[in-house]
Amino acid sequence: MGRYVVERVKSGIPGFDDLIQGGFPKGTTVLVTGPTGSGKTTFAVQFAYKGAELYNEPAVIVTLEERAQDLRKEMATFGWDLERLEREKKIAIVDGVSAVVGLPSEEQYVLEGNLNTEDFLRYIYRVVKAINAKRLVIDSIPSIAFRLHDESRIREVLLQLNTILLEMGVASILTTEAPDPGRGKISRYGIEEYIARGVVLLDFVEKEVELKRYLLIRKMRETKHSMKKYPFEITEEGIVVYPSGEVY
Amino acid sequence: MGRYVVERVKSGIPGFDDLIQGGFPKGTTVLVTGPTGSGKTTFAVQFAYKGAELYNEPAVIVTLEERAQDLRKEMATFGWDLERLEREKKIAIVDGVSAVVGLPSEEQYVLEGNLNTEDFLRYIYRVVKAINAKRLVIDSIPSIAFRLHDESRIREVLLQLNTILLEMGVASILTTEAPDPGRGKISRYGIEEYIARGVVLLDFVEKEVELKRYLLIRKMRETKHSMKKYPFEITEEGIVVYPSGEVY
Amino acid sequence: MGRYVVERVKSGIPGFDDLIQGGFPKGTTVLVTGPTGSGKTTFAVQFAYKGAELYNEPAVIVTLEERAQDLRKEMATFGWDLERLEREKKIAIVDGVSAVVGLPSEEQYVLEGNLNTEDFLRYIYRVVKAINAKRLVIDSIPSIAFRLHDESRIREVLLQLNTILLEMGVASILTTEAPDPGRGKISRYGIEEYIARGVVLLDFVEKEVELKRYLLIRKMRETKHSMKKYPFEITEEGIVVYPSGEVY
Amino acid sequence: MGRYVVERVKSGIPGFDDLIQGGFPKGTTVLVTGPTGSGKTTFAVQFAYKGAELYNEPAVIVTLEERAQDLRKEMATFGWDLERLEREKKIAIVDGVSAVVGLPSEEQYVLEGNLNTEDFLRYIYRVVKAINAKRLVIDSIPSIAFRLHDESRIREVLLQLNTILLEMGVASILTTEAPDPGRGKISRYGIEEYIARGVVLLDFVEKEVELKRYLLIRKMRETKHSMKKYPFEITEEGIVVYPSGEVY
Amino acid sequence: MGRYVVERVKSGIPGFDDLIQGGFPKGTTVLVTGPTGSGKTTFAVQFAYKGAELYNEPAVIVTLEERAQDLRKEMATFGWDLERLEREKKIAIVDGVSAVVGLPSEEQYVLEGNLNTEDFLRYIYRVVKAINAKRLVIDSIPSIAFRLHDESRIREVLLQLNTILLEMGVASILTTEAPDPGRGKISRYGIEEYIARGVVLLDFVEKEVELKRYLLIRKMRETKHSMKKYPFEITEEGIVVYPSGEVY
Amino acid sequence: MGRYVVERVKSGIPGFDDLIQGGFPKGTTVLVTGPTGSGKTTFAVQFAYKGAELYNEPAVIVTLEERAQDLRKEMATFGWDLERLEREKKIAIVDGVSAVVGLPSEEQYVLEGNLNTEDFLRYIYRVVKAINAKRLVIDSIPSIAFRLHDESRIREVLLQLNTILLEMGVASILTTEAPDPGRGKISRYGIEEYIARGVVLLDFVEKEVELKRYLLIRKMRETKHSMKKYPFEITEEGIVVYPSGEVY
Repeated sequence: MGRYVVERVKSGIPGFDDLIQGGFPKGTTVLVTGPTGSGKTTFAVQFAYKGAELYNEPAVIVTLEERAQDLRKEMATFGWDLERLEREKKIAIVDGVSAVVGLPSEEQYVLEGNLNTEDFLRYIYRVVKAINAKRLVIDSIPSIAFRLHDESRIREVLLQLNTILLEMGVASILTTEAPDPGRGKISRYGIEEYIARGVVLLDFVEKEVELKRYLLIRKMRETKHSMKKYPFEITEEGIVVYPSGEVY
Repeated sequence: MGRYVVERVKSGIPGFDDLIQGGFPKGTTVLVTGPTGSGKTTFAVQFAYKGAELYNEPAVIVTLEERAQDLRKEMATFGWDLERLEREKKIAIVDGVSAVVGLPSEEQYVLEGNLNTEDFLRYIYRVVKAINAKRLVIDSIPSIAFRLHDESRIREVLLQLNTILLEMGVASILTTEAPDPGRGKISRYGIEEYIARGVVLLDFVEKEVELKRYLLIRKMRETKHSMKKYPFEITEEGIVVYPSGEVY
Repeated sequence: MGRYVVERVKSGIPGFDDLIQGGFPKGTTVLVTGPTGSGKTTFAVQFAYKGAELYNEPAVIVTLEERAQDLRKEMATFGWDLERLEREKKIAIVDGVSAVVGLPSEEQYVLEGNLNTEDFLRYIYRVVKAINAKRLVIDSIPSIAFRLHDESRIREVLLQLNTILLEMGVASILTTEAPDPGRGKISRYGIEEYIARGVVLLDFVEKEVELKRYLLIRKMRETKHSMKKYPFEITEEGIVVYPSGEVY
Repeated sequence: MGRYVVERVKSGIPGFDDLIQGGFPKGTTVLVTGPTGSGKTTFAVQFAYKGAELYNEPAVIVTLEERAQDLRKEMATFGWDLERLEREKKIAIVDGVSAVVGLPSEEQYVLEGNLNTEDFLRYIYRVVKAINAKRLVIDSIPSIAFRLHDESRIREVLLQLNTILLEMGVASILTTEAPDPGRGKISRYGIEEYIARGVVLLDFVEKEVELKRYLLIRKMRETKHSMKKYPFEITEEGIVVYPSGEVY
Repeated sequence: MGRYVVERVKSGIPGFDDLIQGGFPKGTTVLVTGPTGSGKTTFAVQFAYKGAELYNEPAVIVTLEERAQDLRKEMATFGWDLERLEREKKIAIVDGVSAVVGLPSEEQYVLEGNLNTEDFLRYIYRVVKAINAKRLVIDSIPSIAFRLHDESRIREVLLQLNTILLEMGVASILTTEAPDPGRGKISRYGIEEYIARGVVLLDFVEKEVELKRYLLIRKMRETKHSMKKYPFEITEEGIVVYPSGEVY
Repeated sequence: MGRYVVERVKSGIPGFDDLIQGGFPKGTTVLVTGPTGSGKTTFAVQFAYKGAELYNEPAVIVTLEERAQDLRKEMATFGWDLERLEREKKIAIVDGVSAVVGLPSEEQYVLEGNLNTEDFLRYIYRVVKAINAKRLVIDSIPSIAFRLHDESRIREVLLQLNTILLEMGVASILTTEAPDPGRGKISRYGIEEYIARGVVLLDFVEKEVELKRYLLIRKMRETKHSMKKYPFEITEEGIVVYPSGEVY
C-alpha cells in the first residue's frame, strides 16, 4: 500500500485553506468554537454557501439558534443569496427554531419541537441524502443539547455524528461556545474538542483597548497544519484570513 | 437579489450610533450587560425614551427590579419626563415589581405575581401591540428567571423572545448582570450573550485608584462594528459615548 | 415638569456626603459591603446614630449578628450613647439574636426565633412606624438568609425590602459580606449589589505589609458620584472619609 | 454617660498586646485562623496557659484534634506544665478525641462520642463554671462541625458560642483552617470570620525559597488596632510577636 | 540479591527512549495526556505500530473514539500500514465505537454496546492473549468511563488495568484528556496520573503567537528520567522528539 | 517537671534529619504529599526500609496502589532488598491491591476486598503488633478513601489513625495527592494536612524548561524546623536531600 493521499474539501474561506494543506480532509467533522461575537456562524455558513456556489458541493445548514428566514436575511448582508441556491437544490436549511419557540414555519425542512437523539440524527441523514449533500453545518452544539433536554448525552451524540458523517463522507462544521479560551476552556462542555476531528478556534486578543480577531487551528486530523494565531476579519464579503498577517 | 440593506434604529445614545453603522439593525435583540452600577438601566431607558421622543418610535419598558413609579422618579434626574410620553401613548411601562412585593399598583400595565413563560410573553406581546411599539426594554433577565422560578429555562425564554421580537420587527434591549467581565463571565447565566443578536458590555477599568467607565460592542449581527473599548459618561442628560476618546 | 430635585439624607459620616451630592437620595436602600473587619457595622450604626442625634431623624437598627446590649457596649467605644437616644425614642434597636441563641432578652424590640419572610418584614414595618423612623439599618443580609432558612429567597426578600422602604421614604443601609472584592465578588450571594439602589464597598488594599482602608461608591441611583477609591479611617469618633486623600 | 472603657485581657503572647491596646476586649471571641503549620494551636494554648499562670485567670481548653494527653506532651516542649495547672484547678482540658476514636480516656473532662449542639454547649458551660474560667480555647471549629455531623449549622453554633461567651464574660479563642489566605479564603467555611468579634490570621509569606511567618489582625471589635503584617516566631518558649519587625 | 535490572521496551518514538534509560519498563502502564490536538493518539498508535513492525512485539489497539477503519486511514497518512500488520497477526484493533454509534462493523474484534467493567477487562485480556501481545493501547480513558456509564468507578478500573497488565508483562499506553496543564489539571478526572506508573504530558507553550509542542515526562517508575520540557514535532513519519532541542 | 525531651526517629533520608532536630518525633504521623511523580512512595518506603535495616526498627508497609510484588520489584531498582528484611521479620508488607483487582495473592498479609474502617484499623494494628513494628507506611490516603467507599469519613479515619498510632508510639508516614500546591491545594481532600502532626511537601518548581524537585516541611509538631524549600534528588540509592542547596 502506497502512502495514503487525503482528499481535500475547500473551505471557501479566503486564506484559510493555505493553512491546512489545501482544505479539510474529506468526511472530517470540524468544531468551530469561540466566544460570543467571534464569527462562528458566519464561518460555518460561508463554508456551506461557498461549497455549494463555487465547488458544486451541496450543503445542509441546521440552524438551531435563529430561524431559517432570519439567517437568510443576516447572510444577505454579505451578498450571499441562500434562497437562490436553495431553489437550485444546492443548499437546504433545516429550521430548528420555529417549532421550539411556537411560531409557524413555512420552511421545507423543519425540526419538530420534541425530539430525541435518534430522530434528530435520522432527520439530518434524510436531508443530507435528499440533496446529496457533501457538506453539513450544525449551529450549534449547545442548542442540540438544549433541544434534547439532556446535556449528559452530548458526548454520545457527538461521537455518533462524528462517525456517521465520516461514514457518509460529508465534511461538516459544528459550532460551540467557548466561555474562556485564554484559560483553556475552549468549549461549552469541555469535551466537544476531543470528539471532533478538527478544531478551529475563533477568538479575540486585546491590544491596547481594542479586541483583535484571530484564528487558531488547534487540531486537524490527517493534516499538517501550523499552530499560529492568524488574524482574520469579517468583511463585507464574509470572513477573510490573513496567513501572513500578525495578530499583535 | 441585490445586496440587502439593513434598516437602522437610532439608539438615542449620543456618540453610540457612530460605532454601529448608524444604529441597531431593525428587530435586533441587544443584550446590555455589566456589573452593578455600570449604567445598564440608564442605557436601556434612554434607548426607549429617546426613541419615543426624538424618532417617534413608541417603546415598552418592562421594569422587573423597581416599580414603574420609582423608575420614573429616578429617570427624572436626567430630565426625562416619562409620564408625559406615557400620556401621549408613546411609552408604556409594565410594572413587574408591585405584585411580587405585595404592594398595590395603580399602573395601567402590571405583571401578575404568579407568571409562567407563556403568560409573560403573551402579556408583553399585547402591550407592544397596544401602543404599536417599535422598541422594547426588559430590565432584567435575571429578574425574569427569578419570576419564572426556573433558571434552567432561561435559554428557551431568551430564544423565544429573540425570535418573536425579530418577527415583530421590534428592536429590544435586555439587560443582564456580568459578575466578572475581566475573566470572561459577561453574563449571569453564561448563555445570554450567545442567544442575543447584539451584545454591549458596560464596564469599568481601574486607572490608578479610580474606576473609569467604558463600553465595548462584543457582537452586532448584520453590522460592521469596531471592537474598541470606548469611554462613556453618565451625565445629567444621560449616557454619552466618546467614539474618539481613550479609556486609558 | 421641571427637572426633579432629589432630596438628600445626610450620612453622618464626615467627608462622605461630599462624594454623593450631599447625601443619600431619600428612600434609597444602600448596600454596605466588605470583607470581615472592614467597618460595615460601624458605618451602618453611625448612619443611624448621627441621623437621630444631629438631624433629628429617628432610626431603627436591626441587629442580627450580636445582641442589642453587646452592640450598645461596642458602640460606646466611639462615645455613642445609643441608650439615651433610645429613651428619647429616636433610636430603636431590634434584637435579632437572643431568641435564636436561646438567651432571654429584656429588650423592647425582639425578633422571635422562628420567623418567616412576611413576619420579618411586618415586624420591621411596625417598629419603623412606632418611632416614625426615617432611617433603617439591617446588619446583616446573610444573617437574614440564615434566619429565614432559605437562601434561595434572598433575591425576593431584598426586592421587597428595597421597594417597601422606598415607598415609606425610609433611607436604609443593609450590610453584606464580600468574600473577595478584588475578584469581583463584592457580596455574599452575588445578587445583593444588583437589587440595592446604592452600593458602598469598604475594603482594604495592601501597601507594603500593611492593609489600608478604602471606600468605593460602586452605585448610587439618582446621584452623580465619583468612582474613586477614597481612604478612610476608623477613629475614636467613628468613621472618617478623606475625599482628597490618596489610597496608595 | 462617659466614654466606655474597655476591659482588656492579656494575651500571654509577648509583643502581641501592644498591637491591640493592651489585650483582647473582655468577653470577646477571637478567631485564630491560618493554614496548616501556622501555629494556631500553639497560639491558643499559650493564651490559656499564660492566662492561668501569669494572670490568675483559669482557662478551659477543648481539644478536638488530639487527645488531652498528646496535647500536654506537645506543649511540654515549650516548657509549659499543663498538668500542674490542672491540679491547681487553673486549667481544665476537655478531651474531645478519645470517644470519637474509640480509645478509653482517663481524663476528668471528656466529650461523648455522639453529641448534639446543645449538649456540646451545655458541657462547655459546665466546665467553665466548674473552674470559674475566664478564658476558653476551642481547637478547632472544623472539628466541631465534623463532630456535630452538620456543617450547615456551623453559623448558628458560632453565633451561639459568640453570644453566650460574651454574656459569661469569658474571653475565648476558636481556631479554624484557612485554605488560601492569599485569595481571600481565610476560613474553612467562609463565615467564621464574620461571626467572631476578633480575627487573627497566622500565615506565611514566601521570601525567596523560605516561608516567613507573619500575623495580621483582621478585626478586633472595641479596639483600635494596626492592620500591618507582623513577623512572629515559634520559639522554645512559644510564640513571640515582633511589633517593630519587618516581614519582607 | 544483586541490583535489579529493569527490562526496557522500545517506544518507537525517535528521540524518546534516550530520555528514559532506553525505553519504558516492561509491564508499565503509561498515561499519555494532553489537551486536544496535542498528538496523544498518534503517540499511542506509533508505540503499537513500531513495536509490532520493528521489535516484533505484537500490539493490541483499543480504539474508543473513532472506528478501526477511520483510525487505519488516518494513520496511513504517516505511511503506517496497520492492515498489513493485522493480517500478520502482529496488530489487533478492537473497534469500540461501531456498536455504540449503531453502525454495523465487519471488524474481527468488536466491543459490544452495553459493557460492564468486567466484560471490558476480560475482552481485552482475550485479545491480548489471542495475538500474544506485548503492547496495548487504549484510546481513551474518558471514553471508557463514558462507555461504562460510571465515572466514579474510573479509579477502580485504572487500578485493575494497571495491575493486570503489569502481571501480564504487557507495556501499555492509556490516553486521557488534560483540560488545563498549566494550572496543574493534567488529566480529565484528576486521578489518572496517580494510578499510572508512568505519565507523559504532550502540551503546547505559546511563543509569540504560535503554539509550540513539547513533551514532559512527569513520572516513570523504575526509571531515572529528566524533567525537562522537550520539543517534538508531528512529522510525515509520525512523532519525533528532540532531546537536545529547546522549547523556548 | 523539667523540659520534656522529644525522642527522635531517624528518617533514613540522607540530609533530611538535619532539618528536623535529628528525626521525626516518636509516634508522629507525618503526611507526605505532592503531585504525581514527586517521589512520595519512594520517600515513604525508604523511611520504612532504612528504619528496619539501619536502626533495627521493624516497619509495616501498607500498599494500596500497587501489589506487594510490584512494589518489591520497583524498590529493587534502588538496591533495596525488601524480601530479605521480610524474611527477617523486620518488614511486613500488607497487600491492599490484589483482592480489589480480583487477582490471587500469595502474600502473608492481605487486605480483603470489602473492608470497613474498623476492620482496616484492626488489621493494621494486628500486623504492627505481629512484627513489633516501630514504623508504619500507608500509601495512600486517597486509596483508603476509595477502598472504604466513603470519602466523607476520611477526616474521622485520619483522626483515628493519628491518635492510635501516637498511642502505640509508632512513627508513621501517610501519603496523599496534592493537585496544585502552588495554589494552596496541598492535599486531595483539603483536610489531611490539618489532621497530621507533620506535613512534608514534595513538589516541583519550573526553572526555565525544567522541573526541579524540592521538599518543604510545612508542619512538624514538637519540632523546631526550617520553612525553606530544599532541593532533593531521586538517586540510584533513593532520595537525598541537600540542606545547603538552592532550589533556584
